[in-house]
Amino acid sequence: MSTVSEIGENRLVQLLTEKLPGREDVVKGVGDDCAVVLPAPRGWLQLLKTDCVVEGVHFLREHAPEQVGWKAMARVVSDIASMAGEPQHALVTLVLPPDTQVSWVERLYDGLQRCANLFNIALVGGETSSGNQLVISVSLAGRVKTTRCARRDGAREGDAIMVTGKLGGSQGGHHLTFIPRLSEADWLADNARLHAMMDISDGLAKDLPRMALASGVEFVLEESSLPVHLGCTREQAWSDGEDYELLLAVPLRAARRLESAWSRKFPETPMTCIGRFVPVGHGVKPSFAGHGWDHFGPAR
Amino acid sequence: MSTVSEIGENRLVQLLTEKLPGREDVVKGVGDDCAVVLPAPRGWLQLLKTDCVVEGVHFLREHAPEQVGWKAMARVVSDIASMAGEPQHALVTLVLPPDTQVSWVERLYDGLQRCANLFNIALVGGETSSGNQLVISVSLAGRVKTTRCARRDGAREGDAIMVTGKLGGSQGGHHLTFIPRLSEADWLADNARLHAMMDISDGLAKDLPRMALASGVEFVLEESSLPVHLGCTREQAWSDGEDYELLLAVPLRAARRLESAWSRKFPETPMTCIGRFVPVGHGVKPSFAGHGWDHFGPAR
Repeated sequence: MSTVSEIGENRLVQLLTEKLPGREDVVKGVGDDCAVVLPAPRGWLQLLKTDCVVEGVHFLREHAPEQVGWKAMARVVSDIASMAGEPQHALVTLVLPPDTQVSWVERLYDGLQRCANLFNIALVGGETSSGNQLVISVSLAGRVKTTRCARRDGAREGDAIMVTGKLGGSQGGHHLTFIPRLSEADWLADNARLHAMMDISDGLAKDLPRMALASGVEFVLEESSLPVHLGCTREQAWSDGEDYELLLAVPLRAARRLESAWSRKFPETPMTCIGRFVPVGHGVKPSFAGHGWDHFGPAR
Repeated sequence: MSTVSEIGENRLVQLLTEKLPGREDVVKGVGDDCAVVLPAPRGWLQLLKTDCVVEGVHFLREHAPEQVGWKAMARVVSDIASMAGEPQHALVTLVLPPDTQVSWVERLYDGLQRCANLFNIALVGGETSSGNQLVISVSLAGRVKTTRCARRDGAREGDAIMVTGKLGGSQGGHHLTFIPRLSEADWLADNARLHAMMDISDGLAKDLPRMALASGVEFVLEESSLPVHLGCTREQAWSDGEDYELLLAVPLRAARRLESAWSRKFPETPMTCIGRFVPVGHGVKPSFAGHGWDHFGPAR
């Protein structure tokens, strides 16, 4: 049982990167000052995203490191999904206390790699540093066809507010094992008349107002419609966060047809209309007390 | 004097991002799930790089936050430079203890932004998290013309080993204020017969062997030739690290002409031949004891 300080940085990086699968658009992966990849062809836009998970905030030391790695990668995949994009190239930065077991880091990488493999993502580089708290930061580059790019600022007055899956109670385990809605988002870009889309990471309580604000509208929630995970209250579904479900705005008259087409394509996953977007001044404040996740103290 | 926990995450992000300058190839910067940018045109390759600075490792709390921000951005610019590339789009992840002063974070961002502005980089997104140790992680996307991309694995037997600037003693302040060698690298890509190039971040003692190993050669150092910062020993120039100078391999017969062309173009900055690459089995171990910077304990 070695620690990272016993084997040193060069050997650690070698251990973690010697078996990384590639992609045909990777010119040079790990091992130079930068990764070198082919740019997206004409007609595509490039997507860039970065995110991190921090010990004691997004995971605990007693969690399985494979799950921590999975989560770190899956979170950024969820963001690429919410633009209706395709993930391609990931960079991973690890901040590790010197007494971290090498086996812990290898298992973390197994989790990162499993998620990367599922979505055909190449790990093309990264960085390691010592520190006194575990931090895993993942940057992901992807692409989306120009005509399909889904943004969060396009919701219109009268649009139906839809969510995939069920919400709430993610801290029971879902936050470590969720599968990002990449194929669902891909299908939606082809089959729904998407005005706006984003993922729900900080909780509907934080993310729905963000979509409304970005779009210049307000919203009326049908509180009784919230799709709730078994054992959760509607309040939890509203404010727990880490659901990684998709939140979308579609024309109200297209919502019913979308629901039925969706249920044939994804019979295991609900698609629920939870309210509608309304003009500024006509929104209704939900009755729930929770305000979603805020990293720095009391939500407001 | 507010702390980040007093103002909350939404307000903090708003404060930091409300005045960010753009670039014409940015379709959507801060404010959606991903940044959206135009891909590089035909004939270019994409460069991806991520790095981080950690409190207590790369900087101390008593350092000026503007300098910490400058350093965090300048480090990744140095990596893009060492591929002879052009930096374009940056993502910034901040891990902040909740009691961090908002003014500290604003000054950090001033430093990040100053460096970004100097090199025409757009800050297009990022993430914030709470944590118990300050971490600033910067991801940078850039591009390089396919015909110009400089790698570290192209050094050949007989090549001259050249370095820009002077080495050693960076901890005296240079590591916080250095200007990445972007314009120098750009000039070198046009004017030197570059076989390989990289930047010196972990010390010549770590980085020169890396270039040799990647290129399948060994090296003989002319120890007396090392360009040394005033007040430093040659041993420090060999192993201190954080120089952010360029290390290059050029054909021996082109080295002299390069030195004179360089000195006309960059009269303030030395360009020094410090040895040559040799076939495997013919390398000579330097007499210095230092081994460069290793994040995880004793270098080996």
